[in-house]
Amino acid sequence: MTFTAILVAILSVVIVVLFLSSREKVQTSKEEAKPSSRSKPWVDEDLKDDTEITSKDEDGDNWVDSGEEDLPHVPYPVVRYPVDIMAERSKDLYRLLNQRRSVRFISPEPVPREVIDNVILTAGTAPSGAHTEPWTYVVVGDPETKHQIRLIVEEEEEVNYRQRMGHKWVSDLQRLRTNWVKEYLDTAPYLILIFKQIYGILPNAKKTHYYNEISVSISCGLLLAALQNVGLVTVTSTPLNCGPQLRHLLQRPANEKLLMLLPVGYPATDATVPDLKRKPLDDIMVYI
Amino acid sequence: MTFTAILVAILSVVIVVLFLSSREKVQTSKEEAKPSSRSKPWVDEDLKDDTEITSKDEDGDNWVDSGEEDLPHVPYPVVRYPVDIMAERSKDLYRLLNQRRSVRFISPEPVPREVIDNVILTAGTAPSGAHTEPWTYVVVGDPETKHQIRLIVEEEEEVNYRQRMGHKWVSDLQRLRTNWVKEYLDTAPYLILIFKQIYGILPNAKKTHYYNEISVSISCGLLLAALQNVGLVTVTSTPLNCGPQLRHLLQRPANEKLLMLLPVGYPATDATVPDLKRKPLDDIMVYI
Repeated sequence: MTFTAILVAILSVVIVVLFLSSREKVQTSKEEAKPSSRSKPWVDEDLKDDTEITSKDEDGDNWVDSGEEDLPHVPYPVVRYPVDIMAERSKDLYRLLNQRRSVRFISPEPVPREVIDNVILTAGTAPSGAHTEPWTYVVVGDPETKHQIRLIVEEEEEVNYRQRMGHKWVSDLQRLRTNWVKEYLDTAPYLILIFKQIYGILPNAKKTHYYNEISVSISCGLLLAALQNVGLVTVTSTPLNCGPQLRHLLQRPANEKLLMLLPVGYPATDATVPDLKRKPLDDIMVYI
Repeated sequence: MTFTAILVAILSVVIVVLFLSSREKVQTSKEEAKPSSRSKPWVDEDLKDDTEITSKDEDGDNWVDSGEEDLPHVPYPVVRYPVDIMAERSKDLYRLLNQRRSVRFISPEPVPREVIDNVILTAGTAPSGAHTEPWTYVVVGDPETKHQIRLIVEEEEEVNYRQRMGHKWVSDLQRLRTNWVKEYLDTAPYLILIFKQIYGILPNAKKTHYYNEISVSISCGLLLAALQNVGLVTVTSTPLNCGPQLRHLLQRPANEKLLMLLPVGYPATDATVPDLKRKPLDDIMVYI
């Protein structure tokens, strides 16, 4: 009888352990399934953070050294403006860039390719973590590819607006009168898709790209300045969840993730923008 | 006896459930404790991603609407340059910004405050998610505060270099001859600390700042262009783990997280830079 009690005890323990561990598995697979609940395995993949530093013992991959230690230093060519010229130049650039607005009404007129090349070169002068230059600018001028991009973006955007974002985000954006119809993706002469390279590829190894998202965003800042400088407009968009489909369409490698999509062209002659104001200096700067 | 068996079974189940649930708790608290293993509660806090979209049902906080739906549209003032002028302007800005380098040798000479104000105003023209303008630029000219910043940054940087980053990151940076001694934090006439506002504060509520890190990084790109435009230099740094201490020192509110720290001034007359090259256009641009 004592034997029966022990047997029952052991059996109970086994049953409870099995039950609990199976429940854990169910929970885990539920969590994993959550982002892909729309039955597309890539949904939400774009939202992962890649800017974190992964410490050596966590990545478990064969990262290698760059092998270029002790690069020689060269003199920095100092350019020095008189103080009054500095003040004038600082005002001029502020005036120019303060006229920049996100414009959604883009003229279909062609834009010289040379200008676009110089704009991309300018973006490429940005600093980057350990000088990895982790950006790829895909410039799409082909009408059929632009249309394919539009179909992908509009399908995902409609779902984003309707289902994922909740009332809050939708009403925030209604303020700016955007919705999921993106006509400019067909009409703009160029679409610039900015990919961040989350790692570099060396023979038989991967090379960490530290702070790749911050670096690419800084580069995008220079791109916006360069566009404004030549009288072109864009709207800085971050298409949610379209990254993998657009990456596939544009045949970009697995280490590249879409960060931003910018339609670029001349503004339409009847273009309008929301009547937004910018914060005054005292609201964005603290002097100590 | 059957009663004893049942009692034993129930007791066994209870013991196992208690044991397993206590083990879960230990695991959870272990995970929570991991980032603060250096016994400073804030360590690694900065590394958390804030750019992710949090869906309505996940945040559990009282986010509110902006209440500014249907902002009126106004005509966009179109500036149109002739094609040859566009090409010239695009080349000029590329030439200017291509001379920008991260300079670690900064002259202590004073820089006009008016110029710094215009540079910050220029940075403030960046686009941001739902026009939240989620940036605070803290400009430090006070020598004592600069020195306090240096002490905090150097202490953390030395630990970063020695312990956390592993051999890989250290050797990547040796290439650029940086180390944890940051003399420029004392000598540069200004330190600009760029904070991202991860949420906005409304009466009795928080306002989501979507894509705040990307927005602030774009703004930093404009800041770098504005500095180069007036002949000032900087080095774009992202001090690991110093955020909470610097936020405390500079008395910034809890919704602000340090993203970047830029020492700003004229280049020292004998300034040198590593002999780095930038990728050619074909390596950063794909045309379709």
